[in-house]
Amino acid sequence: MYIAMNRFKANTPRAAEFEQVWRERNSQLAQVPGFVSFKLLRGSDQEGVTLYVSHSTWASEQAFVDWTESEAFRAAHGGARTPQDVLLGPPQFEGFEVVLES
Amino acid sequence: MYIAMNRFKANTPRAAEFEQVWRERNSQLAQVPGFVSFKLLRGSDQEGVTLYVSHSTWASEQAFVDWTESEAFRAAHGGARTPQDVLLGPPQFEGFEVVLES
Repeated sequence: MYIAMNRFKANTPRAAEFEQVWRERNSQLAQVPGFVSFKLLRGSDQEGVTLYVSHSTWASEQAFVDWTESEAFRAAHGGARTPQDVLLGPPQFEGFEVVLES
Repeated sequence: MYIAMNRFKANTPRAAEFEQVWRERNSQLAQVPGFVSFKLLRGSDQEGVTLYVSHSTWASEQAFVDWTESEAFRAAHGGARTPQDVLLGPPQFEGFEVVLES
């Protein structure tokens, strides 16, 4: 299994707008081969900045890479955009292999 | 749901030793109220440093906090230790509420 995370730093007073974009997005992920699950995670507020993580689980890294090169990926990322000044900089990607599980 | 992560920076040539400590640990997590699942995640090597994440899912933040204050927690953390020089500094904790799920 493989977990893909994007880390987003949001301006806390505008965090609700960030969540709204994710709530309204039409990702079509459920139809993607190898997709297991998706979660949006919210960390605690640190001096006006809230860390969010988009957290998706895949059968393999290859399944994730195939999705990023697919039409479904372009469709998921071509829709609603995050309003300006909600995020402090671009997201930071981190990908992980699952080494142990229980 | 709540996800607790600890981020560890490991010296890549000694990463196998770090994984071995986790493989051999007796966490007893399965018996802890509110525990859902545990994963050890391994990121890619970046200039000799491998990011690991201990990733545990809980029914609620309170269930996680209760565990950290329990005898089971002390037992899980009192056993095998990571050999010296395997890690580059202490772990960094990050806790998250699950905002959306699909």
